[in-house]
Amino acid sequence: MNELNEKIAQLREQVRQQRPLLHHITNFVVMNDTANVTLHIGALPVMAHAREEVAEMVQAAGALVLNPGTLSPDWVESMLVAGHRANELDIPIVLDPVGAGATSLRTQSNLRLLRELKIAIVRGNSGEIGALTGLGGVVKGVETVEEVKEPEEVAKTLARQYGVTTAITGPRDIISDGQRVVAVDNGHPMLKTITGTGCAATTMIAAFAAVERDYVLAAAAGLACYGLAAELAVAEARGPATFKVALFDAIYNLSAEQIIRGAKVHYLRGKT
Amino acid sequence: MNELNEKIAQLREQVRQQRPLLHHITNFVVMNDTANVTLHIGALPVMAHAREEVAEMVQAAGALVLNPGTLSPDWVESMLVAGHRANELDIPIVLDPVGAGATSLRTQSNLRLLRELKIAIVRGNSGEIGALTGLGGVVKGVETVEEVKEPEEVAKTLARQYGVTTAITGPRDIISDGQRVVAVDNGHPMLKTITGTGCAATTMIAAFAAVERDYVLAAAAGLACYGLAAELAVAEARGPATFKVALFDAIYNLSAEQIIRGAKVHYLRGKT
Amino acid sequence: MNELNEKIAQLREQVRQQRPLLHHITNFVVMNDTANVTLHIGALPVMAHAREEVAEMVQAAGALVLNPGTLSPDWVESMLVAGHRANELDIPIVLDPVGAGATSLRTQSNLRLLRELKIAIVRGNSGEIGALTGLGGVVKGVETVEEVKEPEEVAKTLARQYGVTTAITGPRDIISDGQRVVAVDNGHPMLKTITGTGCAATTMIAAFAAVERDYVLAAAAGLACYGLAAELAVAEARGPATFKVALFDAIYNLSAEQIIRGAKVHYLRGKT
Repeated sequence: MNELNEKIAQLREQVRQQRPLLHHITNFVVMNDTANVTLHIGALPVMAHAREEVAEMVQAAGALVLNPGTLSPDWVESMLVAGHRANELDIPIVLDPVGAGATSLRTQSNLRLLRELKIAIVRGNSGEIGALTGLGGVVKGVETVEEVKEPEEVAKTLARQYGVTTAITGPRDIISDGQRVVAVDNGHPMLKTITGTGCAATTMIAAFAAVERDYVLAAAAGLACYGLAAELAVAEARGPATFKVALFDAIYNLSAEQIIRGAKVHYLRGKT
Repeated sequence: MNELNEKIAQLREQVRQQRPLLHHITNFVVMNDTANVTLHIGALPVMAHAREEVAEMVQAAGALVLNPGTLSPDWVESMLVAGHRANELDIPIVLDPVGAGATSLRTQSNLRLLRELKIAIVRGNSGEIGALTGLGGVVKGVETVEEVKEPEEVAKTLARQYGVTTAITGPRDIISDGQRVVAVDNGHPMLKTITGTGCAATTMIAAFAAVERDYVLAAAAGLACYGLAAELAVAEARGPATFKVALFDAIYNLSAEQIIRGAKVHYLRGKT
Repeated sequence: MNELNEKIAQLREQVRQQRPLLHHITNFVVMNDTANVTLHIGALPVMAHAREEVAEMVQAAGALVLNPGTLSPDWVESMLVAGHRANELDIPIVLDPVGAGATSLRTQSNLRLLRELKIAIVRGNSGEIGALTGLGGVVKGVETVEEVKEPEEVAKTLARQYGVTTAITGPRDIISDGQRVVAVDNGHPMLKTITGTGCAATTMIAAFAAVERDYVLAAAAGLACYGLAAELAVAEARGPATFKVALFDAIYNLSAEQIIRGAKVHYLRGKT
């Protein structure tokens, strides 16, 4: 475990040094938050959704985040345009299937992105990933109200179906590329009291995917750093808003020492 | 008054236990804030505006919030689609007519929503409700710069014209269903120093409307809890941003004891 | 210098007393932040982008802010409609060419706004203004990653080409109307750790442009007050999020004494 933590600490430093551009086509609710999280982890954000510019914008990016959380059909078209260009240039795409399972439009749009693009990493909650695989879970709005029964199997299934790395977030995060399975046990229940924490976790993962092509490791690094920042923030919190402020500060201040000491990442399967 | 306060404290607990989904079709400025307020009061938020999904999304909702604060004609169409489905399912609709009176598009769009849908509650500032009734008040941008002369009469008039419960917010909030009139005296002038406080008040009302079908009571509960949270937040404020953080924390932390002790709600007419 | 500072302090008070409406057609990332900054400096915000209402809305405005940071072609059309009406009514327009240079759509759209409208002030970072003049600088996403070599010359060039006042922000802000050149040395590196600080600076400038028709002075006032608030905020900051909260509080609390003591504005050329 310590070797993994040291690697994650190194990757975090690489993000800071390389300052990759994270091109987001994302939802209206979290644009400000995820732009800030991008800066705090050490990368550069840009939010651009116009079909006329996304292919050009993504060329400069280290990773592309697709988050159809307030989707409309024209935005999905822009995601496809940007995604195809990202695929041509071998720029990793991170998909956040917000609310998949809640409506047919959401489920179908996310499946279309998965089928038409080569996605690197999909990060969702248990119900969302369940809806994409047809393996259970219930989503109400954008929240899982009934978990899938076997998250490891569900993660592996999506990974194999679409050649992606899956990250299911929850009290224990499960990451799989279809072979290896990694668990991340960082995090805090206060994350459920504010909006956009899943979206921010996705942005964290994208920052690491821009500097590390082992996407299981990139996803683990993003979720460990995010969950660890949440743990550190709790001490400052008098409620959800002070928690959020402290969380964002903690992402920015997160040191190699804190990561090495505090990340809780281990392989459940493979690379033991 | 104590009986009312105890009822409000109970309703707040019911929101926490039932976790109703509040489907918002709202403006870009406040999406993040109102999603957070929804979580803090104990409900679940979803922001979804695509015409292709709103009728399906609203089916799972406890209340529908329509807030055309950054409206365009296609968003108003989506509001109508969602609203008609909500009406079929008897899901309460809460309308926030942001900026009615400032432009013809805003006044007319809100009147169209009032005419074509069965709205449960309309929450606006004095100038906005004045513009919808034609009874005076002046709106500049989204703010009242000249109050209506007789807010009780204006509230009752809108209530009777469209069969709604009206809530006019200001230093003293006035609520009426056309018969009964309730005053809420909670709140603080610091609320004028940050954006979206009216929108957040509307979200608070919607959370209560999802669990209480006496909409006069639901509106009073939402406004009393919101205003009380503002009063509690002032002690922590060194300016508007620390006030906002403390306000959001206070909404989350608001206890039955605080409500019973601090809510300032009373009937001006009816149910005395 | 003291005379300038006293003038700026007076202008800030004028903003508070006149409460001009700042009509923003701006990007999704910063709408909430810039609405708050508008209130904190003492003005009134409205965000309205529908082509059907912008000409009517802008009539009540003291200034119009055009910020195509998440542009699409239809929003640019609305900017032109609002801008033409603003020009007819002699309402100053402040343009923030976010990401000019990053894509052809951004560069061309901003040049179109400059050509078709009479813009009062353009505020951008070094790379953005470089892209509009063709005089160098490199933009990645929305950030300058390579500065222009001679910012004074670049500022003057844009000013002369389009009859505008140019404000290039950076460690030293440079403002020019083509003749006079002013430097503002307020600010703090922490501003680089949060999103939307350029957009907020533009809003600050717009608040002053609404009360002062010497646009070099208005731009200097906005940037000095913003940079000074940042300097004052640093003492409260434990990271970027606490910095942002303290920055917004400081804008609201900024006193005449603080401005007179702390503003660092001086003429490099003209009015010496």
